[in-house]
Amino acid sequence: MPYELYYWDGLQGRGEFVRLALEEAGAEYIDVARQSDGTAAMMKLLKSKSAPYIPFAPPFIKDGDLIVSHVANILFYLGPKLGLAPKDEALRYTANGLQLTITDFVAEVHDTHHPIATTKYYEDQKEAAKQRSADFIENRIPKFMSYFERVLEQNPEGNKFAVGAKLSYVDLSLFQVIEGLRYAFPRGTKNFGERYPKIIAVHDAVEKRPNIQKYLASDRRLDFNESGIFRHYPELDQDA
Amino acid sequence: MPYELYYWDGLQGRGEFVRLALEEAGAEYIDVARQSDGTAAMMKLLKSKSAPYIPFAPPFIKDGDLIVSHVANILFYLGPKLGLAPKDEALRYTANGLQLTITDFVAEVHDTHHPIATTKYYEDQKEAAKQRSADFIENRIPKFMSYFERVLEQNPEGNKFAVGAKLSYVDLSLFQVIEGLRYAFPRGTKNFGERYPKIIAVHDAVEKRPNIQKYLASDRRLDFNESGIFRHYPELDQDA
Repeated sequence: MPYELYYWDGLQGRGEFVRLALEEAGAEYIDVARQSDGTAAMMKLLKSKSAPYIPFAPPFIKDGDLIVSHVANILFYLGPKLGLAPKDEALRYTANGLQLTITDFVAEVHDTHHPIATTKYYEDQKEAAKQRSADFIENRIPKFMSYFERVLEQNPEGNKFAVGAKLSYVDLSLFQVIEGLRYAFPRGTKNFGERYPKIIAVHDAVEKRPNIQKYLASDRRLDFNESGIFRHYPELDQDA
Repeated sequence: MPYELYYWDGLQGRGEFVRLALEEAGAEYIDVARQSDGTAAMMKLLKSKSAPYIPFAPPFIKDGDLIVSHVANILFYLGPKLGLAPKDEALRYTANGLQLTITDFVAEVHDTHHPIATTKYYEDQKEAAKQRSADFIENRIPKFMSYFERVLEQNPEGNKFAVGAKLSYVDLSLFQVIEGLRYAFPRGTKNFGERYPKIIAVHDAVEKRPNIQKYLASDRRLDFNESGIFRHYPELDQDA
């Protein structure tokens, strides 16, 4: 039975971290909200007044009857099934810790354009967004990126992967983070290759993987846009 | 061998979600940063240029050689060992999904007083903090709290626990969220008992558990203060 992925149609968003894992593994899945009536099915589940253990928000997956929500939880669950988690059980907690650091970073990316309220328009919080983005480029990007660069440097099994000696979903998520940052902040990320060579090497290696190449060339991969997490507002970008 | 918990001394913060689980279970643990030279030991590990899989930030635990970082990951790891996770493996992913929703909520609580930059003083972002807090009380608290109220209502095994028919670390975390919100926003939470009776019942039941009572009365439980996540700045509070 194929996995069912539930996520908003029309944007990459947080769903993309899950899609990349499913695509790399060549897993069968249905991107429910991109089917006709799919969004209605998703909303029905989210708003159910009787179903047990309803998720707070997309993305979530269904595997048979089981619903798993939140990107890191979904990847923790799917990782071993897709061959994208370390075999060593202890290292799975390491992978999850790294993925949760990515989760926190992605939430901060979102707040660069919505620092005051998710329910308000970007235009109505633009001044705060400028301040938050300046701090994000100056302080937060370097803090997170130099952390992941160190994780790669200090991986006892080599520098090519975030955890262990094999590709994991964490590497796929790092690829997506770099793609997103470059889209949103072309000026802020200009010198990434020099500053974070090991992360960029992971990004480039992921990009060349056959299943990822196929996926990126397909119409299943949507372009970044200003409904997603990573948004390009030139006024929020600046040189690092 | 006792678990080692690493978290900033002097505040409850995110470490408290882990402490509550360890205390409820009566587990042996060392709160490392509260020992003499403990903070130095924690910083040494965080800044190591050679140790593998260093955490991004506290809290993290050490269990023998294994380091597990991020609250939800720590609780996912410890839960079964402490008897605070569902026996059914599928429900453990449900518990983790709920805990990650609490994680997101806690990050939003933090941003009510630091909407622009963690590195800047509260006083330097007070105007944005007022706007963000107003939205938080008006929109975000009801969104998250009515979600957890529904989770309790729709738990097929009864309304007393978030997952299954037994106490889990999720219930302990809900207790802490209510404690923190009441401290930070006494006006914004005034009518919680009427609006979210099931969450408050969980809170009250947790508070009465013998090990939790003992912990709350001990000097291991620090008071809330303005270095933590939940801060009481009267100018950020308002009636719901």
